[in-house]
Amino acid sequence: MDQSPFPEIAHLHETFTEGLDLDCGAHLAQIDIAYRTYGTLNADRSNAVLVCHALTGDQYVAETHPLTGKPAWWGAMVGAGKPVDTDRYFVICSNVLGGCMGSTGPRSRSDQNVGEPWGTLFPPVTIQDMVRAQKKLIDRLGISRLFAVIGGSMGGMQALAWASLFPESVFAAVPVATAAHHSAQNIAFHEVGRQAIFADPDFHGGRYWAHGVIPARGLAVARMTAHITYLSEAALTRKFGRRLQGGDVLSPILFGERFAVESYLEHQGSSFVRRFDANSYLCITRAMDFFDLAADHGGSLGAAFRGSKTRFLLVSFSSDWLFPTAESRTIARALNQAAANVSFVEIVSDKGHDAFLLDEPDFHRTIAGFLGGAAEAAGLA
Amino acid sequence: MDQSPFPEIAHLHETFTEGLDLDCGAHLAQIDIAYRTYGTLNADRSNAVLVCHALTGDQYVAETHPLTGKPAWWGAMVGAGKPVDTDRYFVICSNVLGGCMGSTGPRSRSDQNVGEPWGTLFPPVTIQDMVRAQKKLIDRLGISRLFAVIGGSMGGMQALAWASLFPESVFAAVPVATAAHHSAQNIAFHEVGRQAIFADPDFHGGRYWAHGVIPARGLAVARMTAHITYLSEAALTRKFGRRLQGGDVLSPILFGERFAVESYLEHQGSSFVRRFDANSYLCITRAMDFFDLAADHGGSLGAAFRGSKTRFLLVSFSSDWLFPTAESRTIARALNQAAANVSFVEIVSDKGHDAFLLDEPDFHRTIAGFLGGAAEAAGLA
Repeated sequence: MDQSPFPEIAHLHETFTEGLDLDCGAHLAQIDIAYRTYGTLNADRSNAVLVCHALTGDQYVAETHPLTGKPAWWGAMVGAGKPVDTDRYFVICSNVLGGCMGSTGPRSRSDQNVGEPWGTLFPPVTIQDMVRAQKKLIDRLGISRLFAVIGGSMGGMQALAWASLFPESVFAAVPVATAAHHSAQNIAFHEVGRQAIFADPDFHGGRYWAHGVIPARGLAVARMTAHITYLSEAALTRKFGRRLQGGDVLSPILFGERFAVESYLEHQGSSFVRRFDANSYLCITRAMDFFDLAADHGGSLGAAFRGSKTRFLLVSFSSDWLFPTAESRTIARALNQAAANVSFVEIVSDKGHDAFLLDEPDFHRTIAGFLGGAAEAAGLA
Repeated sequence: MDQSPFPEIAHLHETFTEGLDLDCGAHLAQIDIAYRTYGTLNADRSNAVLVCHALTGDQYVAETHPLTGKPAWWGAMVGAGKPVDTDRYFVICSNVLGGCMGSTGPRSRSDQNVGEPWGTLFPPVTIQDMVRAQKKLIDRLGISRLFAVIGGSMGGMQALAWASLFPESVFAAVPVATAAHHSAQNIAFHEVGRQAIFADPDFHGGRYWAHGVIPARGLAVARMTAHITYLSEAALTRKFGRRLQGGDVLSPILFGERFAVESYLEHQGSSFVRRFDANSYLCITRAMDFFDLAADHGGSLGAAFRGSKTRFLLVSFSSDWLFPTAESRTIARALNQAAANVSFVEIVSDKGHDAFLLDEPDFHRTIAGFLGGAAEAAGLA
């Protein structure tokens, strides 16, 4: 298990020595943004698609993860012949600011204490800060306008922020299974996870690297809680129902038998802690909680998109209770008020929030169709 | 904070020296059941109402709690002139088997290790075991038939189990905001709570009393998680929305400001650990998870109530997502199949599962009306 704050693996990245001004007023003196690309940028640099990852995602959207050995996290969506077709588009995916897969975050060397990682002293970042960092990367790659920005969950928040902050740089935006603000319930679930991390004695106030440990138990509980919110009741029942692992007989020992769902959640928790940094989890959940596009525009979500020429496709999933369809409908209404070009599709699925990552043919056809139409309108060959 | 396994306070209780055979096959050599009564038993002992408490409830249903000083947990429902009218009915409420307020549970002296509390070696109990223990208490009080059994959440599970196990002893049953089995999602939320307790180094494998500590942080996280599931999104939003405690300005320190919802959840968690035993929490959540009346009757819920003469009133709340209306509807269908006498009311409320404990006039009128009609049919003066 990697407990080092400065891991050895060299993720492909760009360094920006001018740093970044953050929404909170702090200034990062220098930032790294780790990223991957797939496909080929065309001659007029007009076929770039930025994929934004979710809370615990990373830049390895369309290839096996070099650290975990896990398959591409959105392999069904991004690749040759896939809806986000790498034979046609130049796909970019970067690790978010605050992340732990090579981009500047709590695990990076602090600006303030030489040789020490930031830990919990890393300044809070917003979804907009993440997007401004991505904009620097896009500029560095010589791309002035993205053909599309697409992402699910927190990735969808970034897609919305891109369209709001840099409307001229986004031809099409596809926010999936997301919302323009984080609900009280979602904040509460995040807070439970954070409290579990704080409660772990191996957290050491965020300086766990100095003790050669990680707050694995707290982080696992956080992940387990979050994981429940990613699944629908139907998906949980289908996967596990109430099956006991060792048969259906109640043993006279209190924890002598287990429900299948428990072992699964425990596995989810413990595999997660090996790949994700606890301080990044704190930082990124916080960024999601603070996201509120309407509040940033005097209480009017429409104002966030006024005059936008971006083409929007909003997608929700019928059984997603973390980012329910009503949230996408609210965004669609605001975009309509702003006279923006918007399509909205609710995909019928019983897989919950997780559906955006899974094999959902209707969803994939919808994305492929929308991007195809937009490509034609954009004059892509 | 009481860390002693054998607390000093003497809860009113009855002792059953014959012990109790449990569903798991274990036998408890002797059990205590702590209880409270309100009102007066009539001459023919026909006006007794048993109130069954929920997961973290206790026997102090209609009076200030002697340990916490908190008001009666169901003061709006039970008392003089209230729907469960103590001027008319003799109300009994007992602490469940496995509890920590005077009834035999993990904190009691072990049958096996003299002078030691059971801890996690306490045998697993079922909802039916709790009901069999209550039946002993009712017998001891000289009551052969209860006029009514009423309870919400896990209390509703007990009401269902009473009607199934002892149909001749229950004239009317009122299961509120409950289900005939615990769903995969509910099991998963419980499991997160249990894992948080296990992860607390102060848990010491359940022998925390020997170390003079309690797993307060783990138990608080468990309580926080559960608390979210008790509230609707609307209730959370109304109570807290996204309000920051110190204004709306993002500070440059990661946890320099707090959402109101976070402080509330933290308070919920930390006040809870002062009154509830962690091993009891493990034991009772487990009992709920194992509850599955249909499975106990060859897969047929109707079979659990075949030939029942009990009058049922089922109540659900429209915004309860922990025990949604569909669960009550399933029970109503099964009761109809069993040709039982059943009424079913969904109360429109946006307060979530918690609504059953709150000031809901429609709910209270429904209960008062049903009990009044049943009292007439039972020939109560």
